[in-house]
Amino acid sequence: MTTDSWVEVSADGGYGVENLPYGIFSRPGELPRVGAAIGDQVLDLAAMSAAGMVEDRRYFASGSLNAFMVAGRAAWAANRARLVEVLTDESYRDQVEPHLIPVADVELLRPFEVADYVDFYSSEHHARNTGRIFRPRDEPLPSNWKRLPIGYHGRAGTVYPSGTPVIRPSGQRRTPGEPEPSFGPSQRLDFEAEVAFVAGVPSAAGRGVPTGAFREHVFGFVLLNDWSARDLQAWESRPLGPFLGKSFATSISSWVVPVAALEPARVPPPVQDPAPLPYLHCEEPWGLDLHLEVLINGQVVSRPRFASMYWTPPQQLAHATVNGAPLRTGDLFASGTVSGPERDQRGCMLELSWNGQEPLELGDGTTRSFLEDGDTVTIRAQAPGASGSRVTFGEVTGTVHPTRA
Amino acid sequence: MTTDSWVEVSADGGYGVENLPYGIFSRPGELPRVGAAIGDQVLDLAAMSAAGMVEDRRYFASGSLNAFMVAGRAAWAANRARLVEVLTDESYRDQVEPHLIPVADVELLRPFEVADYVDFYSSEHHARNTGRIFRPRDEPLPSNWKRLPIGYHGRAGTVYPSGTPVIRPSGQRRTPGEPEPSFGPSQRLDFEAEVAFVAGVPSAAGRGVPTGAFREHVFGFVLLNDWSARDLQAWESRPLGPFLGKSFATSISSWVVPVAALEPARVPPPVQDPAPLPYLHCEEPWGLDLHLEVLINGQVVSRPRFASMYWTPPQQLAHATVNGAPLRTGDLFASGTVSGPERDQRGCMLELSWNGQEPLELGDGTTRSFLEDGDTVTIRAQAPGASGSRVTFGEVTGTVHPTRA
Repeated sequence: MTTDSWVEVSADGGYGVENLPYGIFSRPGELPRVGAAIGDQVLDLAAMSAAGMVEDRRYFASGSLNAFMVAGRAAWAANRARLVEVLTDESYRDQVEPHLIPVADVELLRPFEVADYVDFYSSEHHARNTGRIFRPRDEPLPSNWKRLPIGYHGRAGTVYPSGTPVIRPSGQRRTPGEPEPSFGPSQRLDFEAEVAFVAGVPSAAGRGVPTGAFREHVFGFVLLNDWSARDLQAWESRPLGPFLGKSFATSISSWVVPVAALEPARVPPPVQDPAPLPYLHCEEPWGLDLHLEVLINGQVVSRPRFASMYWTPPQQLAHATVNGAPLRTGDLFASGTVSGPERDQRGCMLELSWNGQEPLELGDGTTRSFLEDGDTVTIRAQAPGASGSRVTFGEVTGTVHPTRA
Repeated sequence: MTTDSWVEVSADGGYGVENLPYGIFSRPGELPRVGAAIGDQVLDLAAMSAAGMVEDRRYFASGSLNAFMVAGRAAWAANRARLVEVLTDESYRDQVEPHLIPVADVELLRPFEVADYVDFYSSEHHARNTGRIFRPRDEPLPSNWKRLPIGYHGRAGTVYPSGTPVIRPSGQRRTPGEPEPSFGPSQRLDFEAEVAFVAGVPSAAGRGVPTGAFREHVFGFVLLNDWSARDLQAWESRPLGPFLGKSFATSISSWVVPVAALEPARVPPPVQDPAPLPYLHCEEPWGLDLHLEVLINGQVVSRPRFASMYWTPPQQLAHATVNGAPLRTGDLFASGTVSGPERDQRGCMLELSWNGQEPLELGDGTTRSFLEDGDTVTIRAQAPGASGSRVTFGEVTGTVHPTRA
């Protein structure tokens, strides 16, 4: 049974009081501000705080979640408890109802300001598949892969909110077999279905964030599409990794799901063999039972499960900071493509079409090796929530537009 | 002959009116604000603007240069002309002199807020040397190296001002020959002597910044030390590039040298063969005749020359944006290690000691394979300025501190 709210909430919608994700919304002529999703409504937290019904106004009368994200775990927990209280106790209805706005009437904006953006590579199935495709003569998994969560820094300035058009990037690429590189629009445009977490509370330089301190620093999770130009990426990446093949666009979902909402989704991750070094040891299981769906033009093409990820979020955070790099509020850490062992669990076109060798059939009779102009890619996810409920991540979506002349 | 200022300026100091670099300074109990260096003085531009003697106060009564950097080339030129006027025309002396502060009496802070940080790899000598050291069985230069300026995103949150202590990072590394990786403080800590430019004026998403538009967007140049843990880097970098081996610290110099001050330093870069693709073609010569010096504990160990860099700053900027990634104010682009053909022109310990095989002798009778705790690394640079003057970059310095327990 889900916990009852006096707000109408559909059982399958995933926006009950067990979720209460935060986002930034605006209406025409009004300033952007913080809201929480409940059912098909947005609860205006700026108005709620102005009315003295929730905490400190500085958190919520803001165009980003950063002020609230830095407030820390106790403030997050207190606000969450208060929201549950006012949304379940019928006696608050008259005071709260004026601050509910149908989500259809608002625009959802980028939820937070990104400080640094890191992208990992933590699905063993994805790593093995891309190894086979890109480095067919080598072992699919690099020798370091099971020793540490491989990652790299991406471009924070091109992390865009869901719905932002994705302009097909141009760049250098070399067609295999051709001696010379050429310049033009990417011919191998791809998506990558990922899950990301965002830091709220900074950490000190020179000190890492141990796996056990994950909840003290991390505010919540979003869905992320790491748009990728495979031809640019393949040509540029040696020896320093991806650059222009990734930096043109990264999309994130509008609602940030609090860490607390995902506690019921925690499951044991895959067995890690060899055992990781002590700084990567995690006392608690931090696999997350998130069920993703990837849609191209409304057709479901893949159903990756996040529980299959080899490296977990606390391990990623401990690794990224073990060299003494401090966390800043807004630091964003993405999982890498979420791919499972089955073809219909693969999280990007590169794998789904096996680099174009096995074009993917869409339900409309067309096929895809890579993305075409006009294609819309949408990633959704749900997780088990408290009291038998479901917790939804909503979606991250984007439509491919042609290269600008 | 240099242009005369009524402020006392030593001919060799490099802080004449031909330079006029910008920085952020503070004095005890006062707010950080913008200053310009002249001789051994800082001209307090916040005070000058409050007195109506230079442009708009919003530029200068700020703890970062970002507000002025976004103002654009016309504003930069107008302010520069005005500073030259008031510092050379004796009739302004009585009004201006009260706003000069000895540089010894101020603290210099981080000059700007970094948006994204990109690090290139644009010295052919450095690329060949590292290729020989890290990938001895392959061609030293990757096949893409002369086709595009290879680069990657670094961590913006760990770009620190000159003087910030550098804490030796810990992390995973595998000793060659050992089957298992281990964890501990880096045993191969290095510096990299680099030159970087910072963007002032943003560009639109989906549009690149052509080489000819460099001056419209770029505010100025700094020196940069890309501190590197070679053992961490070697183990983690395959296949996605450097991560923790670089992200613990990057240091930049305090003064930002305006692009205009470096016009007299422009020289033809090395011949580029094969000819780069059209989007990388540059009408004007943009090699820069900067003479760098690297000092360890006060001993000069290297004198790299920036004029030997294969890829130029306008080519780097055009490349980094050709995929449609927009520029933001504060985007920082570093050159990669500046190394020349001679041993005493190599810009990092990895090359100077040939990965520890040929330890470097310091003047104090000690040798170094890599950096030790307590070592201070200082990078300086000078360039020819207008009217036969010299333009100095000042220095970027940092001292290695032990890993925190």
